[in-house]
Parts: sequence; C-alpha cells; structure tokens
Amino acid sequence: MHVKTVMERCDVLAGESEDPGQITRPFASESMRRAQEHVAQWMREAGMVVRRDNIGNLRGRYEGAANSDATLILGSHLDSVRDAGKYDGPLGVMVAIAAVQRLHDEGKRLPFAIEVLGFADEEGLRFGSTYLGSRAVAGGFDPADLDRADAIGVSMREAVHAFGGDPDRIDEDKWRDGRLLGYCEVHIEQGPVLEARNLPVGVVSGIAGQDRYSLVFKGVAGHAGTVPMDQRHDALVAASLFIETVEAYARWHEGLVATVGQLIVQPGAANVIPGEVNLSLDVRHAADAELVVASHSLLDIASVIAKHRNIGLTITKISEHKAVVCDPALASLMSEAIAGSGITAVPLASGAGHDAVTMSSLTAVAMLFVRCEGGVSHNPAESVTTADVAVAIDVLGRFLELLSERASH
Amino acid sequence: MHVKTVMERCDVLAGESEDPGQITRPFASESMRRAQEHVAQWMREAGMVVRRDNIGNLRGRYEGAANSDATLILGSHLDSVRDAGKYDGPLGVMVAIAAVQRLHDEGKRLPFAIEVLGFADEEGLRFGSTYLGSRAVAGGFDPADLDRADAIGVSMREAVHAFGGDPDRIDEDKWRDGRLLGYCEVHIEQGPVLEARNLPVGVVSGIAGQDRYSLVFKGVAGHAGTVPMDQRHDALVAASLFIETVEAYARWHEGLVATVGQLIVQPGAANVIPGEVNLSLDVRHAADAELVVASHSLLDIASVIAKHRNIGLTITKISEHKAVVCDPALASLMSEAIAGSGITAVPLASGAGHDAVTMSSLTAVAMLFVRCEGGVSHNPAESVTTADVAVAIDVLGRFLELLSERASH
Repeated sequence: MHVKTVMERCDVLAGESEDPGQITRPFASESMRRAQEHVAQWMREAGMVVRRDNIGNLRGRYEGAANSDATLILGSHLDSVRDAGKYDGPLGVMVAIAAVQRLHDEGKRLPFAIEVLGFADEEGLRFGSTYLGSRAVAGGFDPADLDRADAIGVSMREAVHAFGGDPDRIDEDKWRDGRLLGYCEVHIEQGPVLEARNLPVGVVSGIAGQDRYSLVFKGVAGHAGTVPMDQRHDALVAASLFIETVEAYARWHEGLVATVGQLIVQPGAANVIPGEVNLSLDVRHAADAELVVASHSLLDIASVIAKHRNIGLTITKISEHKAVVCDPALASLMSEAIAGSGITAVPLASGAGHDAVTMSSLTAVAMLFVRCEGGVSHNPAESVTTADVAVAIDVLGRFLELLSERASH
Repeated sequence: MHVKTVMERCDVLAGESEDPGQITRPFASESMRRAQEHVAQWMREAGMVVRRDNIGNLRGRYEGAANSDATLILGSHLDSVRDAGKYDGPLGVMVAIAAVQRLHDEGKRLPFAIEVLGFADEEGLRFGSTYLGSRAVAGGFDPADLDRADAIGVSMREAVHAFGGDPDRIDEDKWRDGRLLGYCEVHIEQGPVLEARNLPVGVVSGIAGQDRYSLVFKGVAGHAGTVPMDQRHDALVAASLFIETVEAYARWHEGLVATVGQLIVQPGAANVIPGEVNLSLDVRHAADAELVVASHSLLDIASVIAKHRNIGLTITKISEHKAVVCDPALASLMSEAIAGSGITAVPLASGAGHDAVTMSSLTAVAMLFVRCEGGVSHNPAESVTTADVAVAIDVLGRFLELLSERASH
C-alpha cells in the first residue's frame, strides 16, 4: 500500500467530527461511528476480520501462520481532543493497517497473529476519564466510571449502550485470546526532539508519569458593583494566583510540565463575583519520585492560597499513571528496524501519555515516534511529512520481520 | 394589600426558573413567560390594563383622574442572573403593584397615570447585553443587538419573536404616551450601608458609572505533556496574571470595584495548553473621571501582560454607562416620604446599575433602596425582612401622595 493512501485516510478521518470546520471526535459519538465505518472497511481490505468490543474499540485481526499461537497487538486511538490535529492517534492505526495490508498483498502469514486496535478513547474528552479503550483491553476498566456524565448529562453507561456495546460486559473486552508478544504503537512525537535532530522517526525509551487532579475553589458569589473589594471572596482570583504559581513552579523544575487546561467559573456572569471555580491540573515528569514531590507541592500551594484568601478548596485525584519503561527487547528490535532504514535510532522519552501506558500492565510495549512539525499537537496545525510516514511504514514492516525471525527461533 | 402578599409573590416568582433548585430567569425564556403570567394577573387585580411590548416588557397601566395628562413610571426588572436571589428586580415590581393596589382598593385616582413596568432584561444574562427592556422604552435599543446569539446559538431576533414580540417594531416600544413625571424604582440595596446604619430604607443620590469589556487572550494551544514550559504561550496563565492585577488595582483605588466574572477557556481540555481565553471585565466608580482612568489603566495592564508573554489580545467595549445623578426634586420628595415614616433619610450611592440608568435618558429618575442582609445579592442568600418591605410600601405610597400634591399645584 502506498504511503499516499495513509495520508489520504488521515484526511478522511479528519472529516469525521462533531464540530464543523474543526476536528473534535469524542468517545462513542456519531463522528466516531462514521470514522469507525471507514476504518473497518480498510481493515477488511487488508484481510482482517473486524469486530467492535463493548467499550467501542475497533479490532481487526489478521491471523498468523497455521502453527502460530501468539499475537502481537498494533494500534493507537481514534478519538481526539477538541479542535485537534489529524495525526494524534489515527496515524498509528493507519500505519498499522498499512503494514498488515503489505503482508496481505504479499499473501504472507507471520508466525503470530496481528490484531490492530483502534481504541475508542484515549484523550478522555467526553467523560474526563482517559484510556477507556486500552483500559478495557488491559483489564483496568473501572465500572464506577459508567456513572460519569458528559457535558450534557449523558452517562457513560448510556453512551456505551447507544454506541452498540453492553456496558455490563466490558470485562469481556479484556484480552483473552492467548499469548501476547507485545503491543507496538506508532505515534507522532508531539515534541521537538526529532525535528531538532533532523530525524524522521525515533524509538521510545519510556513514557512520563502523569498525575491529574480536579480542584474546586469555593468562594462567595456576589454583586460585582456593590461588594467592596476588601470584602470579596472571589474564587477566580484565588484560582488565578494558583495558575500563575503552577507555571512558575514547573518552569523552574527541570523536566517537569504542569498545566491548567480546563477552568469553569460559576455562576459565570459579567456582573457577578465568581463564587466557584472548577479547574484541572495535569502534572508530568519522567521520574516518578520527582512527580510525587511536584504534585504534592502544587496541591500544597493551592491549599495555602485558598486558606490565605478564606476560600474553600476541594481536591480530587482524577488519575495517576506511573512512568512506563518500554520493553528493552522490543525497543532493541525497533532500533534495529530503524537502523535498517539507514537512520540513527535515537531513544526518546515521551512527555505525552499513550495507550501504551495502560497496555504495559498487560504486555510488553514498544513505540515508534514520527517527527511532527514544530512538535505541535492537540492543535489543527499538527503536521507530518509524507516522506516521514513512508519511513514509519517501512520501519514497522521491518520490525514485524525481525520479530518473526525472533519468534521462529 | 398586605406586605405578606408581596413576600409571597416574590416566592412565587422565585419558583419560575430555567434551573431546578435555583433561580435563573433569563430574557424571553419559558420561565420568564410563566413569571409574567403571574405578574399580569396581579396587575389586573390592582386595576391595571396590561400589555406586553415587543421587546417583552410587561406594562400595567393605572389611569389617573379624568383631567390628568401625565404619567409616572414605576418598575424594575423581572429577569435574573444565574443562581440568583429572590428580590433583585422582582421586589421593585411587587412593591409598585402593591402601591397601585392600595389606590385601587381605595377607589382613588391620582392627578397622573401610573405605569408599572416589569422590564424583560436588565441583567443581560442571556445575550450579554444589559438593560434590553429599559433601553427599548427609553429609545436606546440598538437593532444590531438582534443579531447577538445566546449560548446555544439562538439569536435575539429569534428569541424576541418566539416570546411573542415583533423584532422589527421594537422602536414602537419607545415611550410615546405623553408627558412623564419621572421614573421611580424600588430595589434592594445590594450593599452594606443601610444594614450598618440600622435603617430599613434609603434614598438613592446617584448610580455609579460602569464600563464593561470583553477581552480575548490568544495564545497557542498545544499538548500539555510535550511542550516545554519555556516554549508555551498559555492564554490562561496570561489571563490569570491579568485577573490578579485587576483585583490588586481595584483594592488600592478608593471607591473602585473591578470584576472578572466570566471566563471561557478554549479548547478547554485537561491535557491541552489553553490556546484562547475570553473573559469579561466590569469596572465601576461613582465618579466618571476616576472610572475613565481606571478602565484605561486596566486595559493598558492587560496589553502589557499580553505583549510581555507574546500573547495576542483583543479588547471590545461591551457597554459604557456614565454615572447617573438622581433627580434632586424627586429625591427630595422621596426623602420627605421616608421622613414621614419616622426614618432618617440617608442618601446612598448605588454601586449596582439599575434600569434607572437607562431611564434617566428619558425622564427624571428616583430610587428607593431597601436594606438587604449582609448586602448580599446575585446569590441565593439574598434576603430582606418583611418589616423593611412594609416600610418600602408605605414610603412609596407617601411618595405618590406627595407627588400628587405637587402635581396639583
């Protein structure tokens, strides 16, 4: 299959969105349904048997040779953030399908089956709960999440049901199809290293740990014209001091990134002093010990700011992902596959979380990063070159060959 | 009419809301329609002829004596902020109806007609544009506002039409029923002065000037895990610095209040660096000169913060209301009416805007403030005592008598 097809398919998927003129493809949405119809068709063309599991992952299976008894999972996610780019997620699924298509075109069976997974939710846009798809496969799905509601009050249970899954049978999505060789994910780098080094691809050494919290600052709403400044308990001013401090703290701690990406003000009228602010805090570091210290300090700062201003504060931990080290043996094969394309294999740490984080609890994981322009992602300006994607397809194909050789020994 | 009825009617109106469990009654909403059905009935019981104008104000007219050729307008607004209290607006309409009811019960006609107006929009919750009702009456309605859209994309034109008005004939709502004696509004104080002085009511000397702006900080959205802190252009961090500075500035300028009450983050996901923040700025001061300087300085600070952080900034002036001085002759009558109840008549400046601001461009205005607990308003905790409301009804009745005497001379 030509690389041009992969690029065209990313364009087709970009057209399936909830918001006209931008890419917003949440979990279990109508746009996701249309996107999966395309992907299922492409999987079938590549010789795969396709099904959708209860959580809503699309699964295409390409059987191995007659005597094979193991499976390698390839994949990435099909959902997106709001106003997203074209490649974060879909590129990995498209490159995986291209690699299988090549085997199918050559009538080739490997000594293991390949299952391509298009995960239903990695970004967590709709329910604020990430990795729904890979958690179902790895066995880490929390049934309590089914009671979460989206922005318009639809529960995850209702959403799963409407999408065609059985919310009470998500535990059956857990991997139960025999021995796994590993999980391998192709993804855009979403960072500046490959571009700076002038390299098309790189092998991932590990994924940063990530803590996510929800903070609610509770002040007192009041009339913007009549409550004197020194009698106010403005929740937004307290939140603002916190946001500014988060940036300052992270800026001066090497390797740390911390972000307040969501913020909702209540009541939210121009003439009312903010009574309540609900915001998200996302903290990441490649070293777990450093992450623990940073999260603790930032929450401590929030608490001090709230106390100093006589503002209530409630902190809820939304998620916690320890740093993941990629499997050394698979990473070594991937490096060999990269070198086979005449490219220096540079190991990269990922600041972004990936489905590989969750899948690492199920099996060995490997990742291949593809250079993206300016390191930009989660943004419509997300861009990769056709030449780099062609390299990624070749490298993944060579990785499958090398793994076949190893599996045959 | 007993003061108990006024209190009960405020409770009845509080039950008409868009949000169960809280009071949210926007312009041209279903809850406003139900509220107006109650109020129209109460107006009729008080002997008024009731109609609704195109913008959606409810108008009850109680004719004067046979030889009368002038009208006094009484009123306030029936809409609310989000999660509002019971009295901001409705109390003024209920007290006005009670005063007319007393005349009606006594079979009394004054040497002028009374028109009670229940304004359709003062808070501007739905379309972010305040005083829609009184602007239509005073002749200050801007037809361009009809193209404004609410949060779910309904235009003001559609909303007016759905509510039963003709959006193309709002200019006909302008006062055209002869000579006006003035506009008199009863309202809760929304501030702490009357409570501190242990007085049930007070006469308003003037209303603070108010500038309202919309500011859009435009940064670059990006991945919260991969963009290093020193390469970010986070719109929310810039906005936070501004919000903190607004508070600090206002706190150290006597008589100034400045508030950021609305803030919307785009894209607004926990794992995306904020690319854009849209916020409101509300600035008020009783002295126009000080207000001009403060608004200029605050916008200048916003601009410096944005430039320093390489963030785009767009500033739009939403509204500008110069400080209003209440009519000395009417204020003097109101003071006399207060004194007639054995109460010291204390002049108060209003930090809150009122329909009287807009009506002052049409006719002389007067206001009577009623003490409210803790000065709290725009909040479910808004509270007035029955005894204070009884005083307000008496004072308004005496004001009408005094005005009748003056009109007869």
